[in-house]
Amino acid sequence: MKCIALIFNPSFGEKALKVARELLAYLEARGKEVLLLADQACFLGRSGVGQPEIKKAELLLSLGGDGTLLSTVSLAGPLGLPVLGINLGRLGFLTELDVANMYAGLEAVLAGKFAVEERALLEGRVIREGKVVKQVLCLNECVVGRGALSRPCRLEVRVDGQCAFRFTGDGIIIATPTGSTAYSFSAGGPIIDPQVAALVLTPICPHAFVLRPFVVPDSSLIEVLLLTSVTGMCLTADGHEGIPLLAEDRVVVKRYARSFKLVRLFHRSFYCLVRDKLISQGLEECLP
Amino acid sequence: MKCIALIFNPSFGEKALKVARELLAYLEARGKEVLLLADQACFLGRSGVGQPEIKKAELLLSLGGDGTLLSTVSLAGPLGLPVLGINLGRLGFLTELDVANMYAGLEAVLAGKFAVEERALLEGRVIREGKVVKQVLCLNECVVGRGALSRPCRLEVRVDGQCAFRFTGDGIIIATPTGSTAYSFSAGGPIIDPQVAALVLTPICPHAFVLRPFVVPDSSLIEVLLLTSVTGMCLTADGHEGIPLLAEDRVVVKRYARSFKLVRLFHRSFYCLVRDKLISQGLEECLP
Amino acid sequence: MKCIALIFNPSFGEKALKVARELLAYLEARGKEVLLLADQACFLGRSGVGQPEIKKAELLLSLGGDGTLLSTVSLAGPLGLPVLGINLGRLGFLTELDVANMYAGLEAVLAGKFAVEERALLEGRVIREGKVVKQVLCLNECVVGRGALSRPCRLEVRVDGQCAFRFTGDGIIIATPTGSTAYSFSAGGPIIDPQVAALVLTPICPHAFVLRPFVVPDSSLIEVLLLTSVTGMCLTADGHEGIPLLAEDRVVVKRYARSFKLVRLFHRSFYCLVRDKLISQGLEECLP
Amino acid sequence: MKCIALIFNPSFGEKALKVARELLAYLEARGKEVLLLADQACFLGRSGVGQPEIKKAELLLSLGGDGTLLSTVSLAGPLGLPVLGINLGRLGFLTELDVANMYAGLEAVLAGKFAVEERALLEGRVIREGKVVKQVLCLNECVVGRGALSRPCRLEVRVDGQCAFRFTGDGIIIATPTGSTAYSFSAGGPIIDPQVAALVLTPICPHAFVLRPFVVPDSSLIEVLLLTSVTGMCLTADGHEGIPLLAEDRVVVKRYARSFKLVRLFHRSFYCLVRDKLISQGLEECLP
Repeated sequence: MKCIALIFNPSFGEKALKVARELLAYLEARGKEVLLLADQACFLGRSGVGQPEIKKAELLLSLGGDGTLLSTVSLAGPLGLPVLGINLGRLGFLTELDVANMYAGLEAVLAGKFAVEERALLEGRVIREGKVVKQVLCLNECVVGRGALSRPCRLEVRVDGQCAFRFTGDGIIIATPTGSTAYSFSAGGPIIDPQVAALVLTPICPHAFVLRPFVVPDSSLIEVLLLTSVTGMCLTADGHEGIPLLAEDRVVVKRYARSFKLVRLFHRSFYCLVRDKLISQGLEECLP
Repeated sequence: MKCIALIFNPSFGEKALKVARELLAYLEARGKEVLLLADQACFLGRSGVGQPEIKKAELLLSLGGDGTLLSTVSLAGPLGLPVLGINLGRLGFLTELDVANMYAGLEAVLAGKFAVEERALLEGRVIREGKVVKQVLCLNECVVGRGALSRPCRLEVRVDGQCAFRFTGDGIIIATPTGSTAYSFSAGGPIIDPQVAALVLTPICPHAFVLRPFVVPDSSLIEVLLLTSVTGMCLTADGHEGIPLLAEDRVVVKRYARSFKLVRLFHRSFYCLVRDKLISQGLEECLP
Repeated sequence: MKCIALIFNPSFGEKALKVARELLAYLEARGKEVLLLADQACFLGRSGVGQPEIKKAELLLSLGGDGTLLSTVSLAGPLGLPVLGINLGRLGFLTELDVANMYAGLEAVLAGKFAVEERALLEGRVIREGKVVKQVLCLNECVVGRGALSRPCRLEVRVDGQCAFRFTGDGIIIATPTGSTAYSFSAGGPIIDPQVAALVLTPICPHAFVLRPFVVPDSSLIEVLLLTSVTGMCLTADGHEGIPLLAEDRVVVKRYARSFKLVRLFHRSFYCLVRDKLISQGLEECLP
Repeated sequence: MKCIALIFNPSFGEKALKVARELLAYLEARGKEVLLLADQACFLGRSGVGQPEIKKAELLLSLGGDGTLLSTVSLAGPLGLPVLGINLGRLGFLTELDVANMYAGLEAVLAGKFAVEERALLEGRVIREGKVVKQVLCLNECVVGRGALSRPCRLEVRVDGQCAFRFTGDGIIIATPTGSTAYSFSAGGPIIDPQVAALVLTPICPHAFVLRPFVVPDSSLIEVLLLTSVTGMCLTADGHEGIPLLAEDRVVVKRYARSFKLVRLFHRSFYCLVRDKLISQGLEECLP
């Protein structure tokens, strides 16, 4: 492994910069070329590269939280680049290391002692007048939803060309198993083991109380049609991209051809993670 | 009863205008003075009045749907003016007549043969730097929520000055029993008989799955604090007013001093209404 | 206060006996007459009294957990006898003292320094061929439910003589606000502040997914009819009485004329209790 | 196809007997050997065979409802015998024909014009003192649950040898995708397309509100341990077998080696079935 990309989240402030500098020093001392994106490199007084040059890297280090790692999806996903998450706070579902065990972990990774866990990605497309006007890639979920000021929307959800259900509500989540512990969970969806080859369609606040999350094969082609012309509708991918939708737009979501590669050093069972993250942190969350 | 206000929803189009004209003719033929709001009167080629003059009326006719009736709340609520809903489509929870039985119903009302059902109203206030910067009145619910593009918000909900719970999610609904069959229902809240003197606090898509709707006395003072500075947060009242919130704002909600007066001509049981509206229409909703 | 009844749960074993002996000594040293039920007194080598003699007491001490306190309902409820719960384990929703602060608490109580919190009780009646064949009193909930081996039951639930809903499922819970944090909560019901004058009707595993908990005035008369003849149906009260039901039986539940009197020494907010008990203990519950 | 087994549900009464006689005449007129089980044959004045002889059949006709078809699972499942359901009432999820289109359907089947849809089966085993003391086969679900009179049970659920979660409640459902629209649905589980290779673990009325249904790979080995010694616990398979459990018992559930073969003549989409059965019938269910 000669070339490593380092992505960090400058919004973590001085802590992120400090650890990023240490990582750079550590990796360069071991003869590795480290690529930084230009807009992040400047925070470290370094020069960076554009996104296309990242393809040279053999590993991507994501320094931040689960959100930072999610932001690497559109970069690492199409390249099939393995991603190792180093968490600046508490370990999450996706990040594998924290600052305390960072060097021990990197040691192992540089020695090739790691596993790669493949996770399904979704690609979402906005179709307008027969053309793809926008495309997104995501690891957790695509959401077709309404804005705070807009009225409830009426949607039709199709699976493989056939109407599965229609409803009025706040929106619909199309989530991977990885995303089943994120927004879909908040909206009442089941927890899905990442080894299950499925997607879950979770309605958000449906008026028709009859709706329940649907688990469908991950080979399904999902289409969402806006049945009413409500302003303020958006497609969001992993919570960080918002694409305004027009009345006649159709959103098409399917599993992306490549899987996302998470670098794994420890065997942490999915069920342990669920307990640790969802339950313990969920608990702390709601205490004053 | 000498003076009647007529509110209609011009967005129902020609149908609304036609019925409004017929109602005007009917009422004026019976010697009633009919007040129209200036911005609606123009659709009928009549001259109208400003909101303050409505206080002269002894009855308000709402011509449209449940949404139209909700829009009369800020006008009729403070005046304690009884409201009779005439539905241009299918009967709702709040409207008492439809076009088919409109004249028979009005006959009874003009003869004084009607009951008045009192429903709790909520007043919501936005407090900024110690001052009330905005005030709303609503019959269904106040919602403190996030926009489609914004991140989940972290809120603290206080009841009578004491922290009841904190959570991260899409928002919080403070609903009356009347509103328990509206947005609160979609978000998972219980159905509350309007005779119960209670409010329900229903979290929207809480990350902390531990949260459940809370039913509190309707004498409670509810405060919502924004714990994180998320852009795009809003206070919405009955789904039709959106007030942008700033980071340090506090939203205070309590039962309004006066009740809302619904004119009732028939005894339709609350449980029948729930079955008819929530179930039957909920069903039709989701069929293609 | 001259006469105090002491109820303890012998299934807590030696710990219960030891504390019971200490309490006896403490109270008798202060000149109080202590009444024990005959079937518990024998564990302490004392002679006890029958249930009718308890009416002489001015206070009932319940030594055990929330379950022990629930078991005093049929005794203390009709007498309007104030009940003070001393928990042998962790504080619950209903018990006010634990062993650590027991004497300080009793000191205050004997000095008359305590508040009494009134909680709604339910009385459930089984009507068979026009006659009341069984009657129960409960603080949490009445449940009409099926057995593990029996098929789902079909029930009609009436409120004040009118059919509210029918459904097929595992049963129906009629809970007080006190019971809203017990079985009703497990079945998906809302949390209800004990100050709200309401009951909640919570269906258990309804086939018709359209059902949601209903919150009704606590003045309502609730009737449950068995629409199918399923063997193994039971009425249970506070989880500890099981009354087999026959096909034509009708179960009638309403608020009992008297309230249950909980002795309160501390002001612990309902919301704090909910967080402490439901959340913290709920969490510990599911961790290995 | 020379030999066909016919199973019918005598509890449907004269209607079942009449159609069974017609089917016998129809099939025998076409030169087919028809096998009846001895305990059903007697209702038709015919002689029947024991279960082992059924293995000679190439097709099993199930005459009754979805419940009747479920009762053929332990017979047809191990033999890999295709099952065609003829519904005496309304079409269900599993039955393919009703009386109206029965002959047209059989014509097609005898001409070999049919598809076979493979559905996952579960085998459940009760392990007592290291030995398998009981074994069940089911198409919908295995349930480890408590009786109406018994207290809530405390269970540990293991997936592939590892503790997934512990909880106190009414029980746990381990369902196939086929069963996701049955009891698991009533208990709050998601709807799972039968093409997804998964099982769902759905807790029944968990005290720890933190639990949510878990979707796991259908290759998982599920173990349920009773953590408390509660009397009245049972294992039930497809709702019609109840096996009493003892305190130290362990229930092991996994996908059965063979799939269940449903004969399909029409292409009815899973989503249409869900709408028709769950929604329409669910609706009718709860109306008086």
